[in-house]
Amino acid sequence: MIRVTVWNEYIHEREYEGIRQVYPKGIHGCIGEFLGKNDDICVKYATLDMPEHGLTEEVLNETDVLIWWGHCAHDKVSDEVVERVKNHVLRGMGLIALHSAHHSKVMKTLLGTTLNLHWKHGDSEKLFCVNPAHPIAAGITEPIILENEEMYGEFFDIPKPDDEIFLGWFKSGQVFRSGVTFTRGMGKIFYFQPGHEEYPIYYQPQIQRIITNAVRWAAPYKKLDEVFPVIQEE
Amino acid sequence: MIRVTVWNEYIHEREYEGIRQVYPKGIHGCIGEFLGKNDDICVKYATLDMPEHGLTEEVLNETDVLIWWGHCAHDKVSDEVVERVKNHVLRGMGLIALHSAHHSKVMKTLLGTTLNLHWKHGDSEKLFCVNPAHPIAAGITEPIILENEEMYGEFFDIPKPDDEIFLGWFKSGQVFRSGVTFTRGMGKIFYFQPGHEEYPIYYQPQIQRIITNAVRWAAPYKKLDEVFPVIQEE
Amino acid sequence: MIRVTVWNEYIHEREYEGIRQVYPKGIHGCIGEFLGKNDDICVKYATLDMPEHGLTEEVLNETDVLIWWGHCAHDKVSDEVVERVKNHVLRGMGLIALHSAHHSKVMKTLLGTTLNLHWKHGDSEKLFCVNPAHPIAAGITEPIILENEEMYGEFFDIPKPDDEIFLGWFKSGQVFRSGVTFTRGMGKIFYFQPGHEEYPIYYQPQIQRIITNAVRWAAPYKKLDEVFPVIQEE
Amino acid sequence: MIRVTVWNEYIHEREYEGIRQVYPKGIHGCIGEFLGKNDDICVKYATLDMPEHGLTEEVLNETDVLIWWGHCAHDKVSDEVVERVKNHVLRGMGLIALHSAHHSKVMKTLLGTTLNLHWKHGDSEKLFCVNPAHPIAAGITEPIILENEEMYGEFFDIPKPDDEIFLGWFKSGQVFRSGVTFTRGMGKIFYFQPGHEEYPIYYQPQIQRIITNAVRWAAPYKKLDEVFPVIQEE
Repeated sequence: MIRVTVWNEYIHEREYEGIRQVYPKGIHGCIGEFLGKNDDICVKYATLDMPEHGLTEEVLNETDVLIWWGHCAHDKVSDEVVERVKNHVLRGMGLIALHSAHHSKVMKTLLGTTLNLHWKHGDSEKLFCVNPAHPIAAGITEPIILENEEMYGEFFDIPKPDDEIFLGWFKSGQVFRSGVTFTRGMGKIFYFQPGHEEYPIYYQPQIQRIITNAVRWAAPYKKLDEVFPVIQEE
Repeated sequence: MIRVTVWNEYIHEREYEGIRQVYPKGIHGCIGEFLGKNDDICVKYATLDMPEHGLTEEVLNETDVLIWWGHCAHDKVSDEVVERVKNHVLRGMGLIALHSAHHSKVMKTLLGTTLNLHWKHGDSEKLFCVNPAHPIAAGITEPIILENEEMYGEFFDIPKPDDEIFLGWFKSGQVFRSGVTFTRGMGKIFYFQPGHEEYPIYYQPQIQRIITNAVRWAAPYKKLDEVFPVIQEE
Repeated sequence: MIRVTVWNEYIHEREYEGIRQVYPKGIHGCIGEFLGKNDDICVKYATLDMPEHGLTEEVLNETDVLIWWGHCAHDKVSDEVVERVKNHVLRGMGLIALHSAHHSKVMKTLLGTTLNLHWKHGDSEKLFCVNPAHPIAAGITEPIILENEEMYGEFFDIPKPDDEIFLGWFKSGQVFRSGVTFTRGMGKIFYFQPGHEEYPIYYQPQIQRIITNAVRWAAPYKKLDEVFPVIQEE
Repeated sequence: MIRVTVWNEYIHEREYEGIRQVYPKGIHGCIGEFLGKNDDICVKYATLDMPEHGLTEEVLNETDVLIWWGHCAHDKVSDEVVERVKNHVLRGMGLIALHSAHHSKVMKTLLGTTLNLHWKHGDSEKLFCVNPAHPIAAGITEPIILENEEMYGEFFDIPKPDDEIFLGWFKSGQVFRSGVTFTRGMGKIFYFQPGHEEYPIYYQPQIQRIITNAVRWAAPYKKLDEVFPVIQEE
């Protein structure tokens, strides 16, 4: 059983009627719902407004894969929780950072770059798979159409990914490395660009398939009790 | 001094008046001309119709970087010459494969895959740099516009590149890994997608800058006398 | 159920009494035996002396992962069979090349380099994992000791691997990239250096664990009916 | 002209007579001396005890490549200076981290992992090149012998390197990824393991050649005025 915690800052859905209509249970609710339909996945939720943002040691100890959605409140996440999440990733917890989570403190501290990019409201996207043998691409056979999506464009300031799985084509004339993986310590990381809060992107079956694949890919076969130690040999 | 040999199958420019008008000295002539303006580069030419396609041992022994343009006559290149070129790449000769050279025998034997792709006549492209620290990208600061270009799209069946430097956005709705590098033995390889024969793409200053950068990047600091040997240690 | 075909040239075990005593059922018999104990893996065998080396279209159509052990008879493998195996790898069949299979025609045509290396009789090896998050390393927690092993040393003329999982330390003073992965088309490839025919290396539980992990990693989630095609878009 | 700043914490050489005898001008003095003999390189020095550790905005603005040697005083480097160095790396300043600099704050914040490893006093090392086509390996044809060196061994907790250039073999039975590269933003990073303070390793011509090669490789063709920005397109 893969234990997933879906974390959401959960602000837009409460503040804007239009967004609440798209995601009445929150973005986390939508993601948790489709993940929970799989027999091998169980889901818990955590949000910014909970004590310690819902990410206590107890919660993270029982999390195999953490999904992160955040946008307007990155700086509200406490440094202590960021350090704790990083520690768990280095020990093997998988991390799936969605859309604007590229700018989360967690991603910045793990990747070391700015993760800055180009962006634009109101665009349309096609996702292409450039790594069909990768398990995250299993079952994705055609380009995925996102009728409405915010544009994220290059240059995207990330380290060289371990693997690049999806490229995004934007109607307005931009490309983006939309699905990329990294490893930090024992932890596997998948960054996936789709998912602007105003559009019902996480309801699309192929997007759900990719995130489900990513959960299975990122789940550790073993989580370490502590980060890799310094060892003096004799 | 970097010794470049520009190889061209040189058929389209002779057979079609429209293409001859674009490249009256052949595509190789155009490429050799802009490269030759650099003090550190000297250029020779070779074409399909020469004996041994102009790629004798003598010529290759004096070649630091081979540029390859071919399209309709890949199967006219003799297996012996292909094997010879491969041998020189493995010993350190740089190889720059342009546009439809992706399907050349030389590229297929070095990379091991089909290099198949999607394509379409009459499109328009924007090239984005996704690896600005790479020496091949030096001096390229803005997206490059190719008003007219043949579309090459994903999935492009190549091995995982060592580095991905440019992505192409096509107006008709496709993306492409347009500038990618590989290493085989001591030889550095750059595949660069732009350059359909009907359009004056190799006259664009930024395209010339990229190919010139690639020549300097691919030039070996040392070319081996033979391929890496099997060595039995004592 | 993952369908594995274990291919062995099966010459040493017949010709040398000492080797037969180590592998009385052939190296393929030993490998097939430990793989077959897994509920999700079923095993067939093929050897050089069979018609078409046991690798007919029928056999390969029903093979998810091909394991290859060869040493003294690489040039006895027909080019037709090599081409057929390559075709199936590009369509998604996994390939695990063991020890001296680095010099097989199959590996050379897929990787494009010489795969030459340094070597020496009668050494001792320690295998270190440098990629503990990789599924092929699952359950491998300590360096693996091979009391007796042939030395394979650098420089090993391979393309840059997708992932490097194990490094070998040899007592006589050499290192080797002993466990590396590649992708060609839809096919995943794992090269694993241990397994000289004179030593009972494939009986070691950790070696068996690695090969079993590799089988599961290399098994395709989908095998294509043909290699990736050229597609002209409209 | 490549402007190099050699930074050293410069403590061991003052505190221990034996180390002072090896490096009477400090490790930085030795490194600066051999680099300075090249017509295209000019050298400045900075040490921990200087105001702002010698790494003011003015100094970094005039630095193309920063070399870093530190060991026992990593935590004495102020967070402000670490952040400033990181900013310059992201803007294109090359960084060469030597030996125990793996544990510097600068490396940890750029790479995101612990950089923990195994270690042992009093060992002997052989360095092998596994990437002979890389410019950092130019002119290195044989394994490099370090008669006396501290052992650094795997598992080394780093992200997947962009390129792996050298592997280290240690007599006591360990291997190490001794020369690896990373890119962060516009900045190129080379980590190179040799150089324990008690042994005259930086006097060895081949070690000097590698560090000199690395300086030329890491020098930016352009340093940005600021880190890559967020850009809203219209």
